[in-house]
Amino acid sequence: MELQLSTWPEIETYLKRSRLIVIPIGSMEQHGPTGLIGTDFICPEVIARKASKASDVMVGPTFNVGVAQHHMSFAGSICLRPSTMIAVMNDWTNALAHHGFNKLVWLNGHGGNIATINAAFAEYYHQRNYAADGIHKNVRCILRNWWDLRGIADLCARLYPEGHGQHATISEVAVTYFCHPELSKTEELSPKIAPKHEPFTDADDYRRKYPDGRIGSDPSLARAKDGALIIETATLSLAEELKTLNSES
Amino acid sequence: MELQLSTWPEIETYLKRSRLIVIPIGSMEQHGPTGLIGTDFICPEVIARKASKASDVMVGPTFNVGVAQHHMSFAGSICLRPSTMIAVMNDWTNALAHHGFNKLVWLNGHGGNIATINAAFAEYYHQRNYAADGIHKNVRCILRNWWDLRGIADLCARLYPEGHGQHATISEVAVTYFCHPELSKTEELSPKIAPKHEPFTDADDYRRKYPDGRIGSDPSLARAKDGALIIETATLSLAEELKTLNSES
Amino acid sequence: MELQLSTWPEIETYLKRSRLIVIPIGSMEQHGPTGLIGTDFICPEVIARKASKASDVMVGPTFNVGVAQHHMSFAGSICLRPSTMIAVMNDWTNALAHHGFNKLVWLNGHGGNIATINAAFAEYYHQRNYAADGIHKNVRCILRNWWDLRGIADLCARLYPEGHGQHATISEVAVTYFCHPELSKTEELSPKIAPKHEPFTDADDYRRKYPDGRIGSDPSLARAKDGALIIETATLSLAEELKTLNSES
Amino acid sequence: MELQLSTWPEIETYLKRSRLIVIPIGSMEQHGPTGLIGTDFICPEVIARKASKASDVMVGPTFNVGVAQHHMSFAGSICLRPSTMIAVMNDWTNALAHHGFNKLVWLNGHGGNIATINAAFAEYYHQRNYAADGIHKNVRCILRNWWDLRGIADLCARLYPEGHGQHATISEVAVTYFCHPELSKTEELSPKIAPKHEPFTDADDYRRKYPDGRIGSDPSLARAKDGALIIETATLSLAEELKTLNSES
Amino acid sequence: MELQLSTWPEIETYLKRSRLIVIPIGSMEQHGPTGLIGTDFICPEVIARKASKASDVMVGPTFNVGVAQHHMSFAGSICLRPSTMIAVMNDWTNALAHHGFNKLVWLNGHGGNIATINAAFAEYYHQRNYAADGIHKNVRCILRNWWDLRGIADLCARLYPEGHGQHATISEVAVTYFCHPELSKTEELSPKIAPKHEPFTDADDYRRKYPDGRIGSDPSLARAKDGALIIETATLSLAEELKTLNSES
Amino acid sequence: MELQLSTWPEIETYLKRSRLIVIPIGSMEQHGPTGLIGTDFICPEVIARKASKASDVMVGPTFNVGVAQHHMSFAGSICLRPSTMIAVMNDWTNALAHHGFNKLVWLNGHGGNIATINAAFAEYYHQRNYAADGIHKNVRCILRNWWDLRGIADLCARLYPEGHGQHATISEVAVTYFCHPELSKTEELSPKIAPKHEPFTDADDYRRKYPDGRIGSDPSLARAKDGALIIETATLSLAEELKTLNSES
Repeated sequence: MELQLSTWPEIETYLKRSRLIVIPIGSMEQHGPTGLIGTDFICPEVIARKASKASDVMVGPTFNVGVAQHHMSFAGSICLRPSTMIAVMNDWTNALAHHGFNKLVWLNGHGGNIATINAAFAEYYHQRNYAADGIHKNVRCILRNWWDLRGIADLCARLYPEGHGQHATISEVAVTYFCHPELSKTEELSPKIAPKHEPFTDADDYRRKYPDGRIGSDPSLARAKDGALIIETATLSLAEELKTLNSES
Repeated sequence: MELQLSTWPEIETYLKRSRLIVIPIGSMEQHGPTGLIGTDFICPEVIARKASKASDVMVGPTFNVGVAQHHMSFAGSICLRPSTMIAVMNDWTNALAHHGFNKLVWLNGHGGNIATINAAFAEYYHQRNYAADGIHKNVRCILRNWWDLRGIADLCARLYPEGHGQHATISEVAVTYFCHPELSKTEELSPKIAPKHEPFTDADDYRRKYPDGRIGSDPSLARAKDGALIIETATLSLAEELKTLNSES
Repeated sequence: MELQLSTWPEIETYLKRSRLIVIPIGSMEQHGPTGLIGTDFICPEVIARKASKASDVMVGPTFNVGVAQHHMSFAGSICLRPSTMIAVMNDWTNALAHHGFNKLVWLNGHGGNIATINAAFAEYYHQRNYAADGIHKNVRCILRNWWDLRGIADLCARLYPEGHGQHATISEVAVTYFCHPELSKTEELSPKIAPKHEPFTDADDYRRKYPDGRIGSDPSLARAKDGALIIETATLSLAEELKTLNSES
Repeated sequence: MELQLSTWPEIETYLKRSRLIVIPIGSMEQHGPTGLIGTDFICPEVIARKASKASDVMVGPTFNVGVAQHHMSFAGSICLRPSTMIAVMNDWTNALAHHGFNKLVWLNGHGGNIATINAAFAEYYHQRNYAADGIHKNVRCILRNWWDLRGIADLCARLYPEGHGQHATISEVAVTYFCHPELSKTEELSPKIAPKHEPFTDADDYRRKYPDGRIGSDPSLARAKDGALIIETATLSLAEELKTLNSES
Repeated sequence: MELQLSTWPEIETYLKRSRLIVIPIGSMEQHGPTGLIGTDFICPEVIARKASKASDVMVGPTFNVGVAQHHMSFAGSICLRPSTMIAVMNDWTNALAHHGFNKLVWLNGHGGNIATINAAFAEYYHQRNYAADGIHKNVRCILRNWWDLRGIADLCARLYPEGHGQHATISEVAVTYFCHPELSKTEELSPKIAPKHEPFTDADDYRRKYPDGRIGSDPSLARAKDGALIIETATLSLAEELKTLNSES
Repeated sequence: MELQLSTWPEIETYLKRSRLIVIPIGSMEQHGPTGLIGTDFICPEVIARKASKASDVMVGPTFNVGVAQHHMSFAGSICLRPSTMIAVMNDWTNALAHHGFNKLVWLNGHGGNIATINAAFAEYYHQRNYAADGIHKNVRCILRNWWDLRGIADLCARLYPEGHGQHATISEVAVTYFCHPELSKTEELSPKIAPKHEPFTDADDYRRKYPDGRIGSDPSLARAKDGALIIETATLSLAEELKTLNSES
């Protein structure tokens, strides 16, 4: 059940049986010469929607732009300031809490979002600590990175013994190729496996160290059929987690 | 061509032939007992993507939550504070301008966004007036509401001589039913045509005056096939506008 | 009755018989070679004060600087960022609501303010939607542009069949000449009627397209006696509206 | 010469001979049972305008609402948050600096504004310290309280050996009575001289300690003719200061 | 008793007998060629801690960076924007009020902080004026500059008949030399007594007018033993004030 | 070398040989019944200062209050909103970068700060990506948690095979007891080892799950002499890291 594809009476009905919602959250940023700008929202979106069907838990709209300052020297990347993202996430959280949702699982597709998502949670709870009334006191914000879902790390290690990487990873590219097979690219990149392990600061520094955008990966190995497997595994794990959350008081 | 489904080298290539982008912008808000929460982003999204194909102009990610404070007493509505939305739109605009886009057409699906979108444009230009350097001096922000596209008003008047309405209009509901035919609803509502013309303030006031969320409309008349016609007309008009913009210096 | 010229006990007394206030809101911006920088606050101020006397409705202090970023390449223009203006209008609204005013009519003199004024209203209502207590729940914010008052458009069409224009209009200049007859200027401008219809972005772009600041107008036709007529018509219309508002629950 | 009553070419001409401007800044707040809400902007406004004529220095628009949180328990008071006021003052300063003004004398009428005005100056300079370019490097912000102008303290001591007070002072009330003689009030208040010397915190605390709003004053002694004398003295002093500032490089 | 060196049960116990806390607040800024960057927090910190012991009043953590924009052209100075400092002080105040502290004495060591501290107090009270509930209604914020404590001015006048100065004063330098005798410097500076009385704007302007950072002082006269005397006097005065405050309802 | 105990000429001299600075950053929050409120800043402060001496790298002032919203139901905790902390850290960073520091190592003592520190870094770099000039382009922000320094985890595992815990850990309490031996407490707590593994949201939820504030620890085992050992190990590791950083271009 998708919030954006529901009517308000349907959501009202849903809220009588559950107060849980899962929100895909991603980024709009370069993913190497062959990866899609939208990779980081496409992955959690497809997983969350499939898990929603498997668990009868509502999935919210996708939060599609995040904190991607270090990718800004590659065309097409879009970035929120962390302070902006905190404000937006609080607006969403206040709205959903207002309607009665009390467990918000943010299914994240971008490592660079993690810090700001946690900061946004703290900002929300801080405001709540001082609130006079008690109505939203039991809202719980939960961050889940899709690559941390049970089974994913093992699966990726098995599928990609080499070159899985840290950015524009084979697995995330494979997931997007499954969703958009016509966009699959299998050309070999140079170097085959991108450099890694160099700390970076801003966008220029990042591009200097990672000239084609990838970190440690060889996405030429990404195949749609493996993407399907990854999605299936992630969906099962997430659906299970959501059912457990739903059954908790 | 969709930014989110492109690679950065593809976007770099695009920027050599055009600096125009169209961005669907909507809202997440109730649309009556039979309309979808996502109606206001679904409409501009489908039109922008089709027009993008017809005109070879890039379409950006969808800005899917807007200013919907007056709908907050209906479950599922999500709202940005106008000041938050100004901040987000400026982050997007700065990022796109940074890459070289210089004409940003925001294709809007929600009347309640118009004021804040224009305020955000003024905020952006204001900042630019004082900037030392000249690099982004020629960026132009353009607002287009999809229902103002050439031919739409006439078409709707012809299709819906009565009950087209102001919120949860027959036309916008029809567009979403075309996109999601399995969600079509044709049940008669009571009253058949919703009340209208009452000014409102906040969410409670709105719900008091418009108890099921609609304003002046009878969306039971919405049909997917009419939605197709509306989309076709809007697509043609927008594509033409985009081509004209693209040909301007 | 003017708030700024009243004592607090007088205002307390007023609040026992009415909770309505009208607030002139303008801008500080160029109005062509012969128009005053303060034109956009002078017009609503004089109309609001006269209507206040005619209707026994309190008039508040004048909000004299607004959103005028596009005029910043002409000496003397002052501009608030839209986000600043939203903050200020909310401070004013919260203060007046705190004292018990519950209908705030902002009588506006500047087209460029409209978007931000409406955004500020939404910001105010948004905050109220989430407020625990109900005390300010019935405050209503109303925007009226003085040129939209009943009778004004017809009068201007009759007085100025040609060259009324869109900025530094004959009518607004005439109103200021009535208020400050010693500042009247009747020199012919070149071109006689200013250019119009060119969309603009920031201040430099505006000045390029409208080199002397006017849009579509020939203010050399502005006369104080016509200004008197315009003020009289606007005053009657506004006073009537205020009386109606005052009689509503 | 008043900025708001000038045309942009006139201001451009002025800027060739002087880059100095004086800006009246006040507050909208209770001034006891017989004083006007607008007292604190009326005083600096009348003095600044007269001194402007006497010195050929431009006077800007009046900043009419300030920091008056402690007066909020008296009807009619309006208050900016200090953080809002800092934002607004910076918008004004940036705009005036943009046009070439480089000495801004804020003539203040409200003790409660002093802290925030100085904080706003520091905020402006702070931003300038880090600015890349040098164009606005020589802008100087100056705060003058009208009661500190040469001769005023002596004059008030002579006119009002007793009961001059700290808020709703005889002198400021006298100035407003000169400007609006029809609003003069001479009724005796009880107690004749208001209490003083009690530190206060917020609005409720203030009202508890100063029940009719006055601090230490007996404004029943305020007379328009004395107001005229005060204005004359202040005008002379300010005009002299402005001429001196104007002659400095 | 130091908050930062206490356990939460100890603070809970303290709050049963007193709700008063003293908070040292300083700045991180140049203090001439021989003064320490931390001078302005070291002075109030040592005095507050000693007075805390003498009066059994809790001393809070030190607020060690303030508003020092005019010192930014000297290496090592750190500066908060006034708007940032207002935000931080409000976070501290809200937290302490949440625990039950209701008299907060900010013992200040930097003249440049005064405006922003007072603005922050107004911001806090403003927010409280509109708060629905009453729980924090009785919190009182108090500013004390250590050099204004009873006895200090007299003592300094006696110790330093000449060259005490306005910045990098002999007395504050002496206090820091007492705290850090190994850092004492007695070299003669040139000019012996620094210039004074020149108004300044931003950091560059300050450095132009006060080339080695001092204003009006000759800190070569600073001696640790005099610092001890100053601290002793200030401690006695502050302890007495704190005891009085503690005994007030 | 401590920035706060240096003069500006000494810092200028330092900047000729190094542009590295280490900044202790902590929190002000409960640390169980026997731990100090200031624990999280005391630990990094003592380590940073000792490492500074061992490596001739400058240590900055201590950032002593952080994000501690979940501790706010225990007396004495003070908390910054994450958005406030981002603003403050950016003010500090801009100031230090202005003077020429280009490697800022934030030595952190509080797990709850990590997200916001990283968000603040992204905010800083984001602003830099769009800056016109290049002067601060090479500033690098580095986060180091003291417990992650080489050798610390092993040492703690050896010292505390059981009950080391996650909050109010034995090691951090031991470090503070070494710094303040007179505050050592060895009383047994109940339960001996605090509960752990329960996710929490806001302050009330935290206190419900961790009634005395500790998570998973038995700080009754904390001894000053072990604290000395921990400090020594951490100091050696940090000094080595600083020397390496200093030698990098």
